[in-house]
Amino acid sequence: MSNPSPVDAREDTRRLEAFSDGVFAIAITLLVLDIKVPRDLPEGTRLWNALAAQWPVYLAFLISFVTIGIMWINHHRLFRIIHRVDHGLLVLNGLLLLGITFVPFPTALVAEHLLQGDERIAAMVYSGTFTLIALVFNALWWYASGSRRLLNPRANERAVKGITRAYALGPLLYLAALGVALVSVTASLLINLGLAIFFALPPRHRAVASEPST
Amino acid sequence: MSNPSPVDAREDTRRLEAFSDGVFAIAITLLVLDIKVPRDLPEGTRLWNALAAQWPVYLAFLISFVTIGIMWINHHRLFRIIHRVDHGLLVLNGLLLLGITFVPFPTALVAEHLLQGDERIAAMVYSGTFTLIALVFNALWWYASGSRRLLNPRANERAVKGITRAYALGPLLYLAALGVALVSVTASLLINLGLAIFFALPPRHRAVASEPST
Amino acid sequence: MSNPSPVDAREDTRRLEAFSDGVFAIAITLLVLDIKVPRDLPEGTRLWNALAAQWPVYLAFLISFVTIGIMWINHHRLFRIIHRVDHGLLVLNGLLLLGITFVPFPTALVAEHLLQGDERIAAMVYSGTFTLIALVFNALWWYASGSRRLLNPRANERAVKGITRAYALGPLLYLAALGVALVSVTASLLINLGLAIFFALPPRHRAVASEPST
Amino acid sequence: MSNPSPVDAREDTRRLEAFSDGVFAIAITLLVLDIKVPRDLPEGTRLWNALAAQWPVYLAFLISFVTIGIMWINHHRLFRIIHRVDHGLLVLNGLLLLGITFVPFPTALVAEHLLQGDERIAAMVYSGTFTLIALVFNALWWYASGSRRLLNPRANERAVKGITRAYALGPLLYLAALGVALVSVTASLLINLGLAIFFALPPRHRAVASEPST
Repeated sequence: MSNPSPVDAREDTRRLEAFSDGVFAIAITLLVLDIKVPRDLPEGTRLWNALAAQWPVYLAFLISFVTIGIMWINHHRLFRIIHRVDHGLLVLNGLLLLGITFVPFPTALVAEHLLQGDERIAAMVYSGTFTLIALVFNALWWYASGSRRLLNPRANERAVKGITRAYALGPLLYLAALGVALVSVTASLLINLGLAIFFALPPRHRAVASEPST
Repeated sequence: MSNPSPVDAREDTRRLEAFSDGVFAIAITLLVLDIKVPRDLPEGTRLWNALAAQWPVYLAFLISFVTIGIMWINHHRLFRIIHRVDHGLLVLNGLLLLGITFVPFPTALVAEHLLQGDERIAAMVYSGTFTLIALVFNALWWYASGSRRLLNPRANERAVKGITRAYALGPLLYLAALGVALVSVTASLLINLGLAIFFALPPRHRAVASEPST
Repeated sequence: MSNPSPVDAREDTRRLEAFSDGVFAIAITLLVLDIKVPRDLPEGTRLWNALAAQWPVYLAFLISFVTIGIMWINHHRLFRIIHRVDHGLLVLNGLLLLGITFVPFPTALVAEHLLQGDERIAAMVYSGTFTLIALVFNALWWYASGSRRLLNPRANERAVKGITRAYALGPLLYLAALGVALVSVTASLLINLGLAIFFALPPRHRAVASEPST
Repeated sequence: MSNPSPVDAREDTRRLEAFSDGVFAIAITLLVLDIKVPRDLPEGTRLWNALAAQWPVYLAFLISFVTIGIMWINHHRLFRIIHRVDHGLLVLNGLLLLGITFVPFPTALVAEHLLQGDERIAAMVYSGTFTLIALVFNALWWYASGSRRLLNPRANERAVKGITRAYALGPLLYLAALGVALVSVTASLLINLGLAIFFALPPRHRAVASEPST
């Protein structure tokens, strides 16, 4: 036969998932390194005030944490349906992880420049990074689901189409957040936060047809 | 049938546990980055004295390490009883990890400000962080154990109730540590250390009823 | 019998792979810490210009990310064929990980010195690091594949020889990149990038003979 | 029956091993963050010279990497024999990980102070850390192997005794390295390096009696 046995294929997916989980987990945990302890406070400044003044740092930490977290959940969800790995998928998954490991940089950029003159550029780099990651997510999904090539044969067709539709929206919405940054940086960041929450909503259709009765 | 097969459910829990383990492991290991090597010692200062003078740094490192370690053990214990994952659990577990990854920041805050004027605020932020994490731990447990929805069907009812009782104490005790910080920062930190040791005590009832004879 | 049972051997490989995956994942994610947010911009400098001016930082990040990623894929591919672990393999794998964890340092060196006078030395240290890692990769493979000692008995002989040939090229090519740095640092870096892409190409022969029909 | 089934016990060990592997992998990878790129070189200093001048940094990185790596191999070897986890083992393993995550700090201390006046204290803190870790390793092993409580029933008695003997040497040898630092810091560091290599030697007796013919 020219297909590897299901057991071998499954094992492959596991190491890819484990490696990706590691990168997601590290990237999400490194975000905290950008929250700096206020030092050398000017005479008369209370620590409480100094902590409150750096609110953009917490906001950027929160948005990036939720966004990476949601991307992990989506990655996890995709790999419940993707059951085989080939070379192209390895490369596309690598591009995805390149984007994920990069996130701490634009996060720090927004955190440091939100209250300064150049906040617009920082916010555009931030949304631009998420736009590119969303594009790679789509490419990975198209690659894996095209002709159902790498999918679990039991994968529900409606669920597959539902994912294709939902993911196609991602880049457009992040691009919108990028555009809104030209008008209002705060609105742009709130759109990013809203998108993370939107993608955190439960999927309408279960992905694997193990439940014929629903 | 409308439940996924046990094998699928188990696999799900595994990837969630693996991802969570990664975040716990990284957060606990990043704590050491806040222990700085003394540099540019003033004329006549011995390295030994400089090392001894930064004892709050080691104390904060120790308390945070033990606290995160205990939280990992508890997470591990919960997921011996929780056998299924749904979307809500993913989100609550994400909130828990948000708290865990944040811990290095209040740890650094206490470490740097313990010998300065603003130690009170630092200690309150520290205990406040643990209070919030303890609340999320409770929410996660209530969600999973309500109607025994996501539990292993073999889970011992007394053990389930024992966990519910023990966890309900957590937020109250951390809140007490937060309050004590208004009077004595040292006492507050010692309560945090004591709580970590208390939660490290072995559970009275084994959680899974695999041992009918006990 | 003097060989451990296949199940035990497999398990061993798994923990070695899991540990190695962890180190690869962390090293690849730490690279982003060397991308610093521009601060204290001189009067009149736009953030956009400051971001563009540090392009060597992004280039070094990209090359190192792709190189470590490809090395992970290759490690993954080797351990689909290597099915047993002995003490020597543990030690050689440790040397390999020593090289991988070191990569963030020469990356930062290139990133910081590319636009300064000493870029030649930085580029030579960079290619030199990859040369050493490629040598250790060869040593590990020779050790495991010699007399097919640690290989999966089903491993395709042509695939084994193909790996031996492809890997032998690695150190020579990285050494060439090191030499080219004496003439042109940019050319040297582009060779490094090209090598990563070359090694990312799909292997001609499948490694495990599970597909007799191909 | 009052013992958990072998499958449950095995699973427990796996999550403990996975978490420990994560901590080992992160601690060993964070070591590179202490190798700083030389900056702001004084007029006339070549980068090459500046890189060579910080040789203690590379030496400390190397010794710590090899030491943590060997400790990982030993942890791995112990958990081929330890097949069950109880609360005490969780706590002792936690203490061990506390020591491992701390290693980057004394490493940085030695790296920064080796060429300065206070190198003696730095070297003593360094060997002292390894002494404590070796003591915890012994405690963990005594706890698990006492009455063979948590061991694989197939574990070879001679191998168990061999580990007990070899481990008992560890704290004494690291203590010797600590003492030698009073006379010669270089000798003390070389003893640390030598110890890591000694512990990397293959074990004389295989640990699990799956090979009755040897």
